[in-house]
Amino acid sequence: MRCEVVAIGTELLLGQIVDTNSSWIGEQLALVGIDSHFQVKVGDNFERMEHTIRQALKRSDAVICCGGLGPTQDDITREVIAAIMDVELHRDEAVIEKIREMFESRGRVMVNNNRRQADIPEGATLIAQMPGTAPGLVCPVGDKVIYAVPGVPHEMRAMMVGTILEDLQHRAGETAVIRSRVLRTWGNSESGLAEDLAERIKQLDAKGNPTLAFQASGMEGINVRITAKAVDETAAEAVIASEEEIIRSLLGDIIFGVDGQTMETVVLEMLRERGLTLAVAEGLTGGVLAARLSDMDEAMTIFRGGAVRGVFANASQAATAVRHDFGADVGLAVVAAQASDQQPAGTVFMHLDIRGGQHTQTVSLPGDRARFRNYAVINVLNFLRKTLATL
Amino acid sequence: MRCEVVAIGTELLLGQIVDTNSSWIGEQLALVGIDSHFQVKVGDNFERMEHTIRQALKRSDAVICCGGLGPTQDDITREVIAAIMDVELHRDEAVIEKIREMFESRGRVMVNNNRRQADIPEGATLIAQMPGTAPGLVCPVGDKVIYAVPGVPHEMRAMMVGTILEDLQHRAGETAVIRSRVLRTWGNSESGLAEDLAERIKQLDAKGNPTLAFQASGMEGINVRITAKAVDETAAEAVIASEEEIIRSLLGDIIFGVDGQTMETVVLEMLRERGLTLAVAEGLTGGVLAARLSDMDEAMTIFRGGAVRGVFANASQAATAVRHDFGADVGLAVVAAQASDQQPAGTVFMHLDIRGGQHTQTVSLPGDRARFRNYAVINVLNFLRKTLATL
Repeated sequence: MRCEVVAIGTELLLGQIVDTNSSWIGEQLALVGIDSHFQVKVGDNFERMEHTIRQALKRSDAVICCGGLGPTQDDITREVIAAIMDVELHRDEAVIEKIREMFESRGRVMVNNNRRQADIPEGATLIAQMPGTAPGLVCPVGDKVIYAVPGVPHEMRAMMVGTILEDLQHRAGETAVIRSRVLRTWGNSESGLAEDLAERIKQLDAKGNPTLAFQASGMEGINVRITAKAVDETAAEAVIASEEEIIRSLLGDIIFGVDGQTMETVVLEMLRERGLTLAVAEGLTGGVLAARLSDMDEAMTIFRGGAVRGVFANASQAATAVRHDFGADVGLAVVAAQASDQQPAGTVFMHLDIRGGQHTQTVSLPGDRARFRNYAVINVLNFLRKTLATL
Repeated sequence: MRCEVVAIGTELLLGQIVDTNSSWIGEQLALVGIDSHFQVKVGDNFERMEHTIRQALKRSDAVICCGGLGPTQDDITREVIAAIMDVELHRDEAVIEKIREMFESRGRVMVNNNRRQADIPEGATLIAQMPGTAPGLVCPVGDKVIYAVPGVPHEMRAMMVGTILEDLQHRAGETAVIRSRVLRTWGNSESGLAEDLAERIKQLDAKGNPTLAFQASGMEGINVRITAKAVDETAAEAVIASEEEIIRSLLGDIIFGVDGQTMETVVLEMLRERGLTLAVAEGLTGGVLAARLSDMDEAMTIFRGGAVRGVFANASQAATAVRHDFGADVGLAVVAAQASDQQPAGTVFMHLDIRGGQHTQTVSLPGDRARFRNYAVINVLNFLRKTLATL
């Protein structure tokens, strides 16, 4: 089963918008075992769109067209697909009604142009998910298929997850349910993880299901993705849960979270569970640590605040000082070594004052300054995570 | 003149990397008046790469191939282009020497694989810029041309700016030099700017040179780009300078910077010129303001630090307090209105204590919380900028 992606919009070619949709779709297709050999960007031009979609349909079994479903005269994906299907468009009154309601619920009035969004090629079916005013379409062409989805990322994603991926699997004769879970790790290299998991990967290769894959996540560590195939959702989840247990026993506490969790959401949750509040002294990271924590703790009930300075004389004093100044249970300091400390360049002092209990760690970080700062943030969050785990 | 972009790499199709190169190249091409009708992503597969590049060359006058010039067996762009040119590859000893020196200067040893990077199709020429170990290539095919550049963004950019854009213009018979400057504005909408510049745009449309274009830059305002064509660089710069003066007289102080300047670099520079240091109290922006300022003032000589809290009782007290605590000349506070302040939701208090001189402003900001925070940051930086301008 092969599926191409055609991203539509002159603004994509002009570089006014970066096409992240194709990348996301490519990732989802790979996850369910569907090949995507070509991904094309084309402008809002009838002839070139028709040429591109026809060619994609010739080379592949399915084509996902992303964009060009808006209300303006530029938005001609519906017309192009009707031409390729060799059918007429009909205006769907029920869809107009739905769009009208959407506008009214936001206190706005539907303009006439929006009626164009209800033009459906004869023989096409609507995608059930419709988070915006553009309906998605499933358009059969012989035994192949064109999907049309909006270019707005969250609308496209809802349709991919809710309809298209399953429809593609169905067409591929794949009756199995495929599910995955990401285990987020921090503190080991990809080759190190591969070594620790070598035996298990060998066993899984022989079995064929579930599978493991590594995904680098920049400074935020490396993800281990477990993908399972099973007869239904429950069975797939069971396979994943059992595999997760095995991977956890092999990797231990370098796994800091799953799926959408980040180091800061995990740390904030651990603090909350223990009834602790936090204040930070940033002598190196310039506010990045506070920005990340406050972003995840809107009301600042756990993360009480912080102080940012170019230099703190001493990490342990700074940790204790912010703990008192901000009335928190935990004071955390991250401070770069000064020349006078006679430490090698890149040395970072991290200190925790947890209700008077002192914990300290020194690390030596690589990288240019921008990387260095962000690397220090993730390091100190991980230090806090590991220390909290012992309490 | 038409130029297509082919981005090469299976990792692009799998969504492991988002292809930002094509977008950037598309923008540069548009700037010098070259059309780009198609941009294709293709994996590291000989047959599919050959098919894609041949088709692009048929539809367009030039093709930029991005990626696949690395040292591994996957990297086959050189071989594919040689096949399309119908020539052999020869290994260029001078290039090997250059790569070896590059490795040695970093204290590393060149491995044998890197020799492959010196394989050049007969008849191709090397691009002079070579920031990494992959040489770029100019490969004539009849009266058309294929350019091969590395997928590493900064290497690709150096080659585009240093060689390819000029070569394309030359091939297009364009002898003029095209230069542009971006004026960064903050505080007016795109339609508002269009209105303020309507008369001038009409005059320029009649003249044809220079041209003006608007680029939205998200929460960071709207850019007005001046593009000028002239016989040489000096003349182009003169056209731009004279147009900039006219635009500045029409838009006034909503222009905060040019080209790569940001609100924070501008504000830090204004403080430096006035011999002032800064400390901030963030009661709303959670460290984002400090992170942005410290990122641009590594040594924290101007930006002395800040305090982050969920709530400050009072913006003017907070501004004065941080000014004293951090020993700075200017104390800045940005604080959200509390329910008890009996202000509408979204109200933000901004206060400056400049060596005891008090300046205050209240704004009402829209948006969800993530937008709200970032919007508050840019607002308060702009408040500081405007206040400093009066000193």
